Amino acid sequence: MRRVAIVGAGMTAFAEHFALGIKDLLPMAFAECAASVDKGIRTSDLGAAWFGALGATDGFPAGVLADALGLHGLPVTHIENSCATGNDAVRNALFALSSGAVDVALVIGADKLRENAQKDLLGTWEPVAGDRAWDHQLGLFPHAGFALHVNRYLYESPATREHMAMIAVKNHRNGAANPKARLRFEITVDQALSAPIVADPFGVYDCVPQSDGAAALILVAEDVVDRYTDRPVWVRGVGLGLDTVMHQHKRDMTTFPATVRAARAAFAMAGLAPADVDVAEVHDYFTGIELMSYEDLGFAERFEAHKLVEAGVTALGGALPVNPSGGLKAKGHPPGATGVAQCVELFEQLRGDAVNQVDGARIGLAHNLGGPTAVAAVTILEGPA
Amino acid sequence: MRRVAIVGAGMTAFAEHFALGIKDLLPMAFAECAASVDKGIRTSDLGAAWFGALGATDGFPAGVLADALGLHGLPVTHIENSCATGNDAVRNALFALSSGAVDVALVIGADKLRENAQKDLLGTWEPVAGDRAWDHQLGLFPHAGFALHVNRYLYESPATREHMAMIAVKNHRNGAANPKARLRFEITVDQALSAPIVADPFGVYDCVPQSDGAAALILVAEDVVDRYTDRPVWVRGVGLGLDTVMHQHKRDMTTFPATVRAARAAFAMAGLAPADVDVAEVHDYFTGIELMSYEDLGFAERFEAHKLVEAGVTALGGALPVNPSGGLKAKGHPPGATGVAQCVELFEQLRGDAVNQVDGARIGLAHNLGGPTAVAAVTILEGPA
Repeated sequence: MRRVAIVGAGMTAFAEHFALGIKDLLPMAFAECAASVDKGIRTSDLGAAWFGALGATDGFPAGVLADALGLHGLPVTHIENSCATGNDAVRNALFALSSGAVDVALVIGADKLRENAQKDLLGTWEPVAGDRAWDHQLGLFPHAGFALHVNRYLYESPATREHMAMIAVKNHRNGAANPKARLRFEITVDQALSAPIVADPFGVYDCVPQSDGAAALILVAEDVVDRYTDRPVWVRGVGLGLDTVMHQHKRDMTTFPATVRAARAAFAMAGLAPADVDVAEVHDYFTGIELMSYEDLGFAERFEAHKLVEAGVTALGGALPVNPSGGLKAKGHPPGATGVAQCVELFEQLRGDAVNQVDGARIGLAHNLGGPTAVAAVTILEGPA
Repeated sequence: MRRVAIVGAGMTAFAEHFALGIKDLLPMAFAECAASVDKGIRTSDLGAAWFGALGATDGFPAGVLADALGLHGLPVTHIENSCATGNDAVRNALFALSSGAVDVALVIGADKLRENAQKDLLGTWEPVAGDRAWDHQLGLFPHAGFALHVNRYLYESPATREHMAMIAVKNHRNGAANPKARLRFEITVDQALSAPIVADPFGVYDCVPQSDGAAALILVAEDVVDRYTDRPVWVRGVGLGLDTVMHQHKRDMTTFPATVRAARAAFAMAGLAPADVDVAEVHDYFTGIELMSYEDLGFAERFEAHKLVEAGVTALGGALPVNPSGGLKAKGHPPGATGVAQCVELFEQLRGDAVNQVDGARIGLAHNLGGPTAVAAVTILEGPA
């Protein structure tokens, strides 16, 4: 397979963009991404695009992107894979670049779920991310469905709500320094523990805010990397994993097979192991999901994730900082954009340019879990030599 | 690039499947597809899947497919690209197979738009296929939008409503013999011309019925073709083309740049020309679109498409039969399934097994136009030597 590198990355702030439409956010993310390419890039260089969006795009997604960027000569594929949408857009672009069919690709993700012209989708994106005929009718909207998993995990493992609160504190602290994050304030463990309960065991500070936003990457094949930068970030591995949609079919509530499958595929492609990872962006739609995912990703032994939190391993300055961007927790979660934005953060980390820089980071991992909890994707990147 | 072949193909009937859900239709299509593989196939052979659906899938599409087939180890990407969805699913699977990352892939498409649990989407799929903020508010639902194009085409070219009626008669005749088609009766030119007007110049017989259905293909890399069949159908070219979404931005109403771009890309990849095509399945959501597409695909000179109809070139027995399956016109149009179903028809044509067999067909072309009229895709196949 031809190797593939990221040579440009950019994103809008994740925020309540009441005054901006999806057609405003897409060009903003693309402009910052194009400007980040060290030796410059012309739009005519682009061979194809992959657009990640859950569907809140003011109409036909691929066409809206082409219209918004004024690039009607560019073939655009719209990818939707619940919260793993952005990572799967990267995965499909990688295949096209590796095949030789495309040399330069745009990967862009965006969603504006809080308010947009598709009012019908606004109310339905969460059930579309689950089983509409069964779980949704039983009231298993995402918070309730994830709560079933985390409650069982807290019951079976030594982890407690305090560990979840420590993750909230960590990600809020990281996000406070990130100008692209939405929740830019620090909190304390006491604040997290005493916050109103949304769905037990999740208090308000265990939950992600819903944000609008867009993020973009330029991926190129190894043959043409030198035209664009001397500091490429290589896409070493991509993995996508599925699992049953309905909670009644889950055989073990304390692990997410989708993540295990996605991680196995990505590490196998990369020829790397969890111990090789220097910095990670891990799905934290709820704090307890970040905690449990440490185990599914291979960063901790079964039921020992809390030890990483207690030892500060995943905080800035630890051996494996997780969510230095502030994570979904502080940024918010426009699903189409999230996986792409994680790669934007890792692009900066692996080139030494990040706001909350992890010293000497060489291997980065991005992870999302969604469709609650039927899909996960993992992307592994490597910085310039 | 590694070459890629189709080794299995199957589909449900396209119909009003009131008694069946999407979770019934998907396994039905998959079972027929798997059974068509000459030397057999095990589900464990599948490396990845691409699922084309506009979204009417009873919930999270990728997960619903994995649940319906009982294949949770299979990574599933959900592709949405309006009426070009099925062809773009084939295109993305081709890239993954060519890259070397995957050896055996499932491409499956399905939609059940007439009735499903996502009532909110039922009413909105057509605006999601256009510009929700502008064209939709102006009443430009697909029939009205396409009518603007065809009216202008009839004004500028020598073509008349009679030529459209002749296409309706041709496709109804072909569909009458196809057990998978929904409208299995013949009509006359007089019946077509005297039918009630839906949106001028489209009478009822110029319009497609909305059907439910699913279709599936097994694609494999050249290295493993021999394991599955001695009669592979090669995917020679894939092309995807975009254009402006809003009708006010169209520079010329009498041609579809999306189709021109998609065809150029597909023929270039295949190293073939329009004259090489022996049989084609062409988007006929409206009869006038099949007519105009003859020109955009390179089968006719500008404003001379009607000559092909008059000479019977595109009828069975002509030099280039178009829509021997009956087309969308007789089958109906579940958008996620349509492009895949066209390839099912071509798979049978190019192996000599079709109901309305085109003698000696070696090169087949499938085409769809959608997002009215912002996207098109073309797939070029070649039969066994």
